[in-house]
Amino acid sequence: MKLYERLARQMSEQIHAGVLRPGARMPSVRGASRGHRVSPATVRQAYRLLEDRGEVQARPKSGHYVSMNWAGLPRQVEKSAPSVRTTRVDVSELVFEILESVKSDAVVPLGSAFISPTAFPLNRLARSLGSAARRLSPHRMLADLPPGNLQLRRIIARRYLDSGVKVAADEVVITSGALEALNLCLQAVTRPGGVVAIEDPTFYSALQAIERLGLRAVSVPTHPRDGIDLNAFADTLDRHPVQACWLMPTFQNPVGSLMPEDRKQALVELLAAREIPLIEDDVYAELYFGSVKPRPAKAFDKKGLVLHCSSFSKCLAPGYRLGWCAAGRYSAAIDRVKLTTTLATSIPVQAGIADFLVHGGYERHLRRLRRALEIQQTQMVQAIRRHFPQGTRVSRPQGGYFLWVELPPSVNSLDVQRVAMSKGISVAPGPMFSPTRGYTHFVRISSGHPWTPQLEASVATLGRIVDGLS
Amino acid sequence: MKLYERLARQMSEQIHAGVLRPGARMPSVRGASRGHRVSPATVRQAYRLLEDRGEVQARPKSGHYVSMNWAGLPRQVEKSAPSVRTTRVDVSELVFEILESVKSDAVVPLGSAFISPTAFPLNRLARSLGSAARRLSPHRMLADLPPGNLQLRRIIARRYLDSGVKVAADEVVITSGALEALNLCLQAVTRPGGVVAIEDPTFYSALQAIERLGLRAVSVPTHPRDGIDLNAFADTLDRHPVQACWLMPTFQNPVGSLMPEDRKQALVELLAAREIPLIEDDVYAELYFGSVKPRPAKAFDKKGLVLHCSSFSKCLAPGYRLGWCAAGRYSAAIDRVKLTTTLATSIPVQAGIADFLVHGGYERHLRRLRRALEIQQTQMVQAIRRHFPQGTRVSRPQGGYFLWVELPPSVNSLDVQRVAMSKGISVAPGPMFSPTRGYTHFVRISSGHPWTPQLEASVATLGRIVDGLS
Repeated sequence: MKLYERLARQMSEQIHAGVLRPGARMPSVRGASRGHRVSPATVRQAYRLLEDRGEVQARPKSGHYVSMNWAGLPRQVEKSAPSVRTTRVDVSELVFEILESVKSDAVVPLGSAFISPTAFPLNRLARSLGSAARRLSPHRMLADLPPGNLQLRRIIARRYLDSGVKVAADEVVITSGALEALNLCLQAVTRPGGVVAIEDPTFYSALQAIERLGLRAVSVPTHPRDGIDLNAFADTLDRHPVQACWLMPTFQNPVGSLMPEDRKQALVELLAAREIPLIEDDVYAELYFGSVKPRPAKAFDKKGLVLHCSSFSKCLAPGYRLGWCAAGRYSAAIDRVKLTTTLATSIPVQAGIADFLVHGGYERHLRRLRRALEIQQTQMVQAIRRHFPQGTRVSRPQGGYFLWVELPPSVNSLDVQRVAMSKGISVAPGPMFSPTRGYTHFVRISSGHPWTPQLEASVATLGRIVDGLS
Repeated sequence: MKLYERLARQMSEQIHAGVLRPGARMPSVRGASRGHRVSPATVRQAYRLLEDRGEVQARPKSGHYVSMNWAGLPRQVEKSAPSVRTTRVDVSELVFEILESVKSDAVVPLGSAFISPTAFPLNRLARSLGSAARRLSPHRMLADLPPGNLQLRRIIARRYLDSGVKVAADEVVITSGALEALNLCLQAVTRPGGVVAIEDPTFYSALQAIERLGLRAVSVPTHPRDGIDLNAFADTLDRHPVQACWLMPTFQNPVGSLMPEDRKQALVELLAAREIPLIEDDVYAELYFGSVKPRPAKAFDKKGLVLHCSSFSKCLAPGYRLGWCAAGRYSAAIDRVKLTTTLATSIPVQAGIADFLVHGGYERHLRRLRRALEIQQTQMVQAIRRHFPQGTRVSRPQGGYFLWVELPPSVNSLDVQRVAMSKGISVAPGPMFSPTRGYTHFVRISSGHPWTPQLEASVATLGRIVDGLS
């Protein structure tokens, strides 16, 4: 082994041991030369080798950095990649800070995960809630314990059928929002210490749940248009003892990707061959801009291995906390975890939502909401183009209300978030969504609020902040 | 060391390693003699030694059994006592079977944990729910995220004050029922592998939560009148690295005990000196028969170490899933676990319950409910006396709706449960509530339903079943 190869191997070991973390700056050529007592030329050769292997990246005039692409790290990832735990404090603090900020009317919620509550038929929902609660016979307070209100489960099963997915009412367990459903599913299909495959970037709650349950994450890169790379994904499954996957094939949070149906099918088949359950987070499914509702991965599930989780929180009834999972062969297990953790989902709320679905004009509301979100997306994209500096790139998801915005590479989105918050604007920085604190020059911007001059002004302010930090 | 002492030590190690489990039959004298190649006399001497130490019990004409009294096991308990996991299947199955049975009108719910839903002002609640939901401004769907609706938290804080407990609204976190509160608290104050002190017998959900979170239980015996033995409890705290306690000082489920206030105070002081948090499950507090509401242990909390959990499920609004905890120094931590697991408690439900508390006549309802439960308790005790065999003993709790019934020692309550269920009567057998599957000749019987000839007939049937099995 030549000298530079040995040096490269030493550095590689430091990367895999987590001493040099993804995104960290490598020692300068001069520093490494002194530290390792080799010539600068040897250091340069070692860096070129690491670059060729994808383990470090050179940035002009800035030096070398450990590759952000966690999934790209060879072999030892599972053992030596930084565990989710190492990123706990930062990610959690950011998440909680932004969650706290949405409670205040005074903060412009560009970082919010919630659509404006004014976009929903809250009055009509309240009427359904009151009248359904009055009609509820006392015995229903017991009969509607998990799996939950039968009428509601039948309506949900029927809606699956309408969009080409065979799900029986028996398979559906009503939950307190999709977040509970996802957490229940993860508990039902994993054991502490197990490995869960997720996307990078991903919904931060997946990271939190994995940490809380003592699980380990392996991540696969996801493309803002088509979602995860199936080759990389298959490779991950070959290399790690994956107990479960938690993925968002439709309008992924934060990047907005939509996996084409043939790839969803291939994904399900890949997992079915290995008997690995897929927890499918599908909360934005109703918010499509096209003419047809995209089918979920669940549509291709032949073995009952897909646990499809969704809710009415994003499309109809924010704050009601009404979700469900269609959990395939795991329904009975979910039922039991639910009974022992929250016992039941509010029984009048279950009846109220069922009433609205029958009488409230759900489809008309959805059409209006989808149209509004599509227009707001265009408005937000145009405003970002107007106000953000050269080098900014914006995703154009086919549904939902998140824009994944790539800032000029020199901009640190954590700085953007900090400065913006001091000016009363929230924004969700990339590292919040990354098990490796990657995506440091990305932000997620919500287009979930009606366009106003104040919103335009806030985007302009944000653009100036980004410009000032680049 | 003599031969019989060495044999006793071997057997003791098997007990502590969980090879021989509490309640398991020890090898016969002859079998052990052959197996260990010692004389029958040596085996008998070893058994006498183990008996003296309380590790095995002799039963006439039946042989020797590993002691059921888990808490009585010396020293090594924490390391080697059977974990809760070993009892998982049985206890859980029983719990789920009985939970399932309460959904059916056809089963007489003597084993139910729920009061008859007809005992609650459900129509008036539905009116409050509907009108509060209609009045709710859209922004509240975000503002009432955890810790929750401020008006409701203020009302709860005020009710604490009225019963002599200082709790600020800021300390209160609204949850989806007390069960969620208890689970959140346990997550917030323990780490996997930690030791939690519980009562034996105890509420089965404590056992389930401890198991699910990868914790270990040590239990202290509890008296049907006064609750846990504080000396035994202090001893437990000295011997084990207890991270938290989960206790029910007021109307304990299943035994119905009420710790006198001076003992509650001593309990809190005992824990405060050791900085150990107390999760106080206090869901039956409003259902007292005396003239004054018993103060909780929380009343004596000076260090913010008591996490007081309660709900409206048992006293006002079953099925609404509205509870809370006043979590002292842990409130912020609870808030965060809640945000990452179920996000929020249904926001219209929070507003609806607040409306009822202000306008619905809560105190009048409570007076009526307490009176009904007291009468039903007397009716049930008398019926048990009429129909159950000699040797049956019944507790007389000062509140709540559970009777802890000791059957003649020869009766196995699991058999009682099985036979009763086959005749359409549910009953909750003692081992459901015990980390050691103890209390095999106890049942918990609910007096939470209005007296009817059918109920009388069911108690008579149950009495005949017990008689037949004794």
